[in-house]
Amino acid sequence: GLPLVLIAGPCQLESRAHGLEVSSALKEMADKVGIGLIYKTSFDKANRTSVKGQRGLGLKASLPIFAEIRETTGLPVLTDVHTAEQCAIAAEAVDVLQIPAFLCRQTDLLIAAAETGKAINVKKGQFLAPWDMKNVVEKITGAGNPNVLACERGVSFGYNTLVTDMRAIPIMGRIGCPVVFDATHSVQQPGGQGASSGGQREFAPYLARAAVSLGLAAVFMETHPDPDNAPSDGPNMIPLGKFEAIMRDLKTFDAMAKANPVTAL
Amino acid sequence: GLPLVLIAGPCQLESRAHGLEVSSALKEMADKVGIGLIYKTSFDKANRTSVKGQRGLGLKASLPIFAEIRETTGLPVLTDVHTAEQCAIAAEAVDVLQIPAFLCRQTDLLIAAAETGKAINVKKGQFLAPWDMKNVVEKITGAGNPNVLACERGVSFGYNTLVTDMRAIPIMGRIGCPVVFDATHSVQQPGGQGASSGGQREFAPYLARAAVSLGLAAVFMETHPDPDNAPSDGPNMIPLGKFEAIMRDLKTFDAMAKANPVTAL
Amino acid sequence: GLPLVLIAGPCQLESRAHGLEVSSALKEMADKVGIGLIYKTSFDKANRTSVKGQRGLGLKASLPIFAEIRETTGLPVLTDVHTAEQCAIAAEAVDVLQIPAFLCRQTDLLIAAAETGKAINVKKGQFLAPWDMKNVVEKITGAGNPNVLACERGVSFGYNTLVTDMRAIPIMGRIGCPVVFDATHSVQQPGGQGASSGGQREFAPYLARAAVSLGLAAVFMETHPDPDNAPSDGPNMIPLGKFEAIMRDLKTFDAMAKANPVTAL
Amino acid sequence: GLPLVLIAGPCQLESRAHGLEVSSALKEMADKVGIGLIYKTSFDKANRTSVKGQRGLGLKASLPIFAEIRETTGLPVLTDVHTAEQCAIAAEAVDVLQIPAFLCRQTDLLIAAAETGKAINVKKGQFLAPWDMKNVVEKITGAGNPNVLACERGVSFGYNTLVTDMRAIPIMGRIGCPVVFDATHSVQQPGGQGASSGGQREFAPYLARAAVSLGLAAVFMETHPDPDNAPSDGPNMIPLGKFEAIMRDLKTFDAMAKANPVTAL
Repeated sequence: GLPLVLIAGPCQLESRAHGLEVSSALKEMADKVGIGLIYKTSFDKANRTSVKGQRGLGLKASLPIFAEIRETTGLPVLTDVHTAEQCAIAAEAVDVLQIPAFLCRQTDLLIAAAETGKAINVKKGQFLAPWDMKNVVEKITGAGNPNVLACERGVSFGYNTLVTDMRAIPIMGRIGCPVVFDATHSVQQPGGQGASSGGQREFAPYLARAAVSLGLAAVFMETHPDPDNAPSDGPNMIPLGKFEAIMRDLKTFDAMAKANPVTAL
Repeated sequence: GLPLVLIAGPCQLESRAHGLEVSSALKEMADKVGIGLIYKTSFDKANRTSVKGQRGLGLKASLPIFAEIRETTGLPVLTDVHTAEQCAIAAEAVDVLQIPAFLCRQTDLLIAAAETGKAINVKKGQFLAPWDMKNVVEKITGAGNPNVLACERGVSFGYNTLVTDMRAIPIMGRIGCPVVFDATHSVQQPGGQGASSGGQREFAPYLARAAVSLGLAAVFMETHPDPDNAPSDGPNMIPLGKFEAIMRDLKTFDAMAKANPVTAL
Repeated sequence: GLPLVLIAGPCQLESRAHGLEVSSALKEMADKVGIGLIYKTSFDKANRTSVKGQRGLGLKASLPIFAEIRETTGLPVLTDVHTAEQCAIAAEAVDVLQIPAFLCRQTDLLIAAAETGKAINVKKGQFLAPWDMKNVVEKITGAGNPNVLACERGVSFGYNTLVTDMRAIPIMGRIGCPVVFDATHSVQQPGGQGASSGGQREFAPYLARAAVSLGLAAVFMETHPDPDNAPSDGPNMIPLGKFEAIMRDLKTFDAMAKANPVTAL
Repeated sequence: GLPLVLIAGPCQLESRAHGLEVSSALKEMADKVGIGLIYKTSFDKANRTSVKGQRGLGLKASLPIFAEIRETTGLPVLTDVHTAEQCAIAAEAVDVLQIPAFLCRQTDLLIAAAETGKAINVKKGQFLAPWDMKNVVEKITGAGNPNVLACERGVSFGYNTLVTDMRAIPIMGRIGCPVVFDATHSVQQPGGQGASSGGQREFAPYLARAAVSLGLAAVFMETHPDPDNAPSDGPNMIPLGKFEAIMRDLKTFDAMAKANPVTAL
């Protein structure tokens, strides 16, 4: 397999300055560590737990900032889309379109994303089995776009809790597309704080390393200079100051995993 | 509480003739049994398991049929919406808009539905706890529409299986809106047949009766003259020929439930 | 089906006086309501969450009290057994032996219990599917004892939580033995208070009524004059002062359920 | 941390010859690979799914064979105990006593095992949260035996399925005792074949490697020269012929894990 890539960035595009600052910092770290990086940024949080949660800058205001980040840092950029109409517009300024987990079975959205020709990262719904992703992926490849990534991000386990089933990695691998592991949303506690989601960020580096050791295409991790004051997903984002250590760790285990295929039985 | 209402109809609007036939048959039964009825019909199955699944007639072709069913039978009509744009259009021809479970946290859709002023039936996501519906309901009431129904339809329980937690009924009741129980989707086995969902229709009458015995506003049940040949959700729909018996059963238990509040501890 | 029977009593046999007081009170209520009653009492809590939890009087000290309760009240008595050796001894003083949920697959215990010839109430393990109880029941009937009751008491649902799947009632009914529903342990939150289990007693009357409405042989419910000061299972026991109202409620719904078989599809 | 140890052997002690053959083969592999090994063997399968499942040689007949294996191979031996009475007897011939998952809350069994002074490997119940093991471990340490290992073996996830939550490894590590991961029972499908359990042995090497990469004291894996014809747990045991490759794999990842602590947040 190819070396591991990181998909990283803050949950929201908070402002032009914030976006440029975080993307430059991440780019610098990735260069130092020698690991590939895709910058993740969102123009809208369309499914906040509560209507009071902050949603972001919106697509129109974000597009020039996405372009600027791409140009300044040289990093490929990923953003998530929520309606079929947004796909072609967002595709002008980014390299990867991401389908949110709740929306992974919305046929029109998947096809509109596919038709942009961009790479598509589909999050596996919290309500899906790993083998169910075959049908999801085929909605995209059937629309003529073979560049699909399947992303594990935890599965419902009782109320307000997710669990990561590591079997999902080899199972989704058999579908034939690169497998991504979203380590920070997997430790989310959805709705766990009443009007917002809780999280257990301290476990994200454990789950990321375990997943990488099985041979993964990419790890998705949200990070923020000051997670406890972030407008969304603070409880599960990684403090930016710790991110370089995690990059090194994942790079080490990725090299080992790629050199040692798991014993087939 | 007011007497129980049924929300019933086939999974898809298959054709004008089919819609008129099923709605008339249901209307006749409901009159005979003496129970309130809302006719459920869908113009699009927007999140089929596989892209090969049939989707329905589409919004434009369905609107005049919805209107005709409403006029012919005198029944209120409910349909589900999948994008913000569809809300105002669908609202012209129906009485109740329904938010699909996967979409229950999509803020723009909830607000657009709310702004039509129609009654809104929100399905609880398979990934949500009953208390999480408070935030969902508030997205609608906060947009100035107090007519919200909260609908239980099963929660993820391992892979390809749902379970109904009957505690959800009193818990969602405390939110302050009428509670609906979707008895046929609760016995769905999502993705359970590879490229389509399985189901255990034989348990729907059990779950419906159990839920009604706790004091419910409405039961949602899909029904079809020939479920095994229906284009979608066949394994969990109720054969139309059995529907009158179930109506009588639920009416009996509803009367008993409304006359006997559950002992408060 | 035969009319519903209640299996009721406190979690522990706390003392001779306590046992006589609670059993007499329950007997009086049952007579007033006109419902069958089996008195439940435990000589040992063998699997407390923490070693600091109180365990009870022990088998030897309890036997004469069991006999006295049986004689004084005329009620049949049920107790739970934890080792093969206890079965024959406990059988001398009680009418029903109960197998705890954690132990429902311990073959030697099941066979020793079976060989006493007493009726056996087997709790379904929190880790078992309803259909798995077929093998459990056959361990007992295969030892020559056909008097087996299969008891639902909730299934693991994430951490520290149980959920009641009402489908378990018809599924276990097909095994061919009477089905019991344990309404108070089903609302337990195992380990939920750190060194002891939590519980949500307010939902027990809901779950009991829902289960009874499906046609049940018996409901199991723990009750205590002062649950909040009970040595075990306080958070999920029913206050004795509320028990008569619940008895009446379940009797009403049982009569309705037995007169109206659920519609077969 | 100390280097990883393997706890390995077949599900049952099938015969003296079988036990000597498998233990010698494993010992030879472990020496070649340079990894510590504890030989796992069972004298009784006390909780088979069905009463028709084969149970093993029994304690009395097994003791001299355990002793012979220990002497011949020089390996420490582990066996599982099911009653308090068995503990002291089994302790004469083995080095580690194991508490089965279903029995992990049976206080008398835990204390009797503790009192032998042997090391105790307690399997975490399929119905327990990782933090619940604190109380379990304290039942043993409170009886004066500090040599406790806490073993993850999967948690109930819907019906007939287990899932491994990798967070359990750091969470149980905080209790302060060495953490073991049982890779073959974690891929069991309990009751999944009607009258016996199914399994997915092909995932055991994935889960084992993922767990080891987090820093583990020991991996538990059942192995058999011919799993498909083994009297129990065949579907999840590792073919003996593949075991050396897995040993090497786990040794490699263990060294990497012990040299690289997970980033603390």
